[in-house]
Amino acid sequence: MNNFEFKNPTKIIFGKDSIKKLENEIPKDAKVLLLYGGGSIKKNGIYDQVKKALAKVNIVEFGGIPANPEYALLMDALKVIKDEKITYLLAVGGGSVIDGTKFLSSAALFEGETPWDILSKNIRTEKGMPFGTVLTLPATGSEMNSGAVITRKETKEKLSMGGPGLFPEFSILDPQVIASIPQHQLANGLMDAFTHVLEQYMTYPTEALLQDRFAESILQTIIKVAPKVLKDPTDYKAASNFMWSCTMALNGLIQKGVPTDWAVHAMGHELTALFGIDHARTLAVIAPSHYKFNFEAKKEKLAQYAARVWNITDGNTDDKAYAAIEKTVAFFHELDIDTKLSDYTKDYEGTAEKIAQRFTDRGWLGLGEHQSLSPDKVEKIVKMAY
Amino acid sequence: MNNFEFKNPTKIIFGKDSIKKLENEIPKDAKVLLLYGGGSIKKNGIYDQVKKALAKVNIVEFGGIPANPEYALLMDALKVIKDEKITYLLAVGGGSVIDGTKFLSSAALFEGETPWDILSKNIRTEKGMPFGTVLTLPATGSEMNSGAVITRKETKEKLSMGGPGLFPEFSILDPQVIASIPQHQLANGLMDAFTHVLEQYMTYPTEALLQDRFAESILQTIIKVAPKVLKDPTDYKAASNFMWSCTMALNGLIQKGVPTDWAVHAMGHELTALFGIDHARTLAVIAPSHYKFNFEAKKEKLAQYAARVWNITDGNTDDKAYAAIEKTVAFFHELDIDTKLSDYTKDYEGTAEKIAQRFTDRGWLGLGEHQSLSPDKVEKIVKMAY
Repeated sequence: MNNFEFKNPTKIIFGKDSIKKLENEIPKDAKVLLLYGGGSIKKNGIYDQVKKALAKVNIVEFGGIPANPEYALLMDALKVIKDEKITYLLAVGGGSVIDGTKFLSSAALFEGETPWDILSKNIRTEKGMPFGTVLTLPATGSEMNSGAVITRKETKEKLSMGGPGLFPEFSILDPQVIASIPQHQLANGLMDAFTHVLEQYMTYPTEALLQDRFAESILQTIIKVAPKVLKDPTDYKAASNFMWSCTMALNGLIQKGVPTDWAVHAMGHELTALFGIDHARTLAVIAPSHYKFNFEAKKEKLAQYAARVWNITDGNTDDKAYAAIEKTVAFFHELDIDTKLSDYTKDYEGTAEKIAQRFTDRGWLGLGEHQSLSPDKVEKIVKMAY
Repeated sequence: MNNFEFKNPTKIIFGKDSIKKLENEIPKDAKVLLLYGGGSIKKNGIYDQVKKALAKVNIVEFGGIPANPEYALLMDALKVIKDEKITYLLAVGGGSVIDGTKFLSSAALFEGETPWDILSKNIRTEKGMPFGTVLTLPATGSEMNSGAVITRKETKEKLSMGGPGLFPEFSILDPQVIASIPQHQLANGLMDAFTHVLEQYMTYPTEALLQDRFAESILQTIIKVAPKVLKDPTDYKAASNFMWSCTMALNGLIQKGVPTDWAVHAMGHELTALFGIDHARTLAVIAPSHYKFNFEAKKEKLAQYAARVWNITDGNTDDKAYAAIEKTVAFFHELDIDTKLSDYTKDYEGTAEKIAQRFTDRGWLGLGEHQSLSPDKVEKIVKMAY
């Protein structure tokens, strides 16, 4: 097990009818900027629940934050924060709204030249404006971690940021919100959380026995509840396990003491930036090729995953490892998620070269747990994913 | 899954040679009371490492805190805190030293009549004097939770306390400390952590799928590393998994959203108070009888535990559940821990009645996940454990 530090101070408020507990979490004298997305919260009743819980609090609203939160739009929100002397941020939404709120939390107190530096120069946020979240779409784990990913349209870039100042003070997780999420987004959430675990697990054995078991626990739970959630999103038992699994998949715990990969995300982000493909679906496109290309380096863990998660016991290590990749692809298909780039765009020729070039331009020499995936290897993996 | 709230702000610093990181965690201007136990830290080098890391900090020492930290002695330490105007507490030890430090953290800021009220009147600690820990004996999980158990010799009582103000600010976990722990205490630590998980898991099914899997993960890991730790405590891989499992067994995570039992601890505490039997060993005495007595209520979970943790697949639910209890007892014996009260004292007659009477006197009407274990049932369970 590698040395590690772990601290996660976010308060989770989980369960039925928990949105009303908002009123206990935000200081009475705060001036709150309520951030949300495309307006679904006004249709499914969450907006009303939030407003009711905060009836006594001074609130300004900023809606319309899209998937892959966009820098230019967030700069508009930052202006509101300054103009209105906002003191507290409340994200009501999924990962995109929460990530956008994290950027604002950092940017509101940033003293550098331009907030873009936080992303482009990878500046760690030690202290941000306090914020909380009401999660409306389980997927990214952003509700209990200190990272965010922000997109800049003009340059087709998708960059990450983070730091100990970016943990939400609280996050409210009411699994009942799942009932009104469209199938397409439920599948994305299941896919996203599943891949988050794989990125922190599918590397090489390090005798971090408990971390491995925890990662497998989340994978097993997602596999178990996925068909139930998709069939009946009002099934509270399935919904609550889905929601808690998404949070635990990326709240820092399972990555402690172990190597992590994240190459699937790095390549996937480029597909979103280039083609606008849903984040989760880019992961389904890249992951199978990634595991096949890096088969030798990952086969021990793939075989362990085969045995423990998919109950594949026949054959040698190679057989089991290969069967596990097949099972994983089949699982993605069961979520009704396509796993080839050509399923999403006819315009895929040249994509592999383009992505490799972008990595070269950014000076990213090696991705993955061994930092060994050079741009030429990235090119091969993306080509395998056509 | 039941509604829950979860917040655990303790910073964990885990790994080889991590004690030296102490210097970054305690404010430079603090006046520190360094608390420790019987002095083993002076023999195994931990004391020297701590003193070196804190060379620039103003430190007062208070050693000699025994297993089952004793109220009267802690009151002496409290006097030192007041007299010396201490501002920060540092526990260097196992669960007993850490629990004693938690009591002091609370008592130092307590404004009631007598600090005994914190225990006898079950007063929640919202804010305590800040403290950190250097863990020298993995077992209780106290390094990452907000609870403590304190003993009062004069009344032979062992009572618990807690509250959000009692999380350590940081805990340093260097698995190398395990190399110098005596076999007897290593076995106690393994036993204690194992039972902590059982208390939060061995109840009835509630479809909290992830919590179940996490609990099973910890049990599987302890079973896997126990013989290695006992055979060679310098085996860092085994030691690190043991240490992290103990912390995760009782840091609040696996109990969220599920019913918990804790009757084994409640009965076990009485055996420690009455006979001075090691805490961990009292759990080994009570647990088998407890699970047999409550077989009908617990057999679904016992059978799940049988299948997932012990790979027992033959037979019906009853068969598997019973076999799991047998396996558990055999595991305790492999740790060289006896499982009958008569193995520890010849003077056991009347103990069951005495404990039942004490519960009656305290007004504890029902223990366990259903609050259904009345004193007469407690009497039967303890008698089965003779």
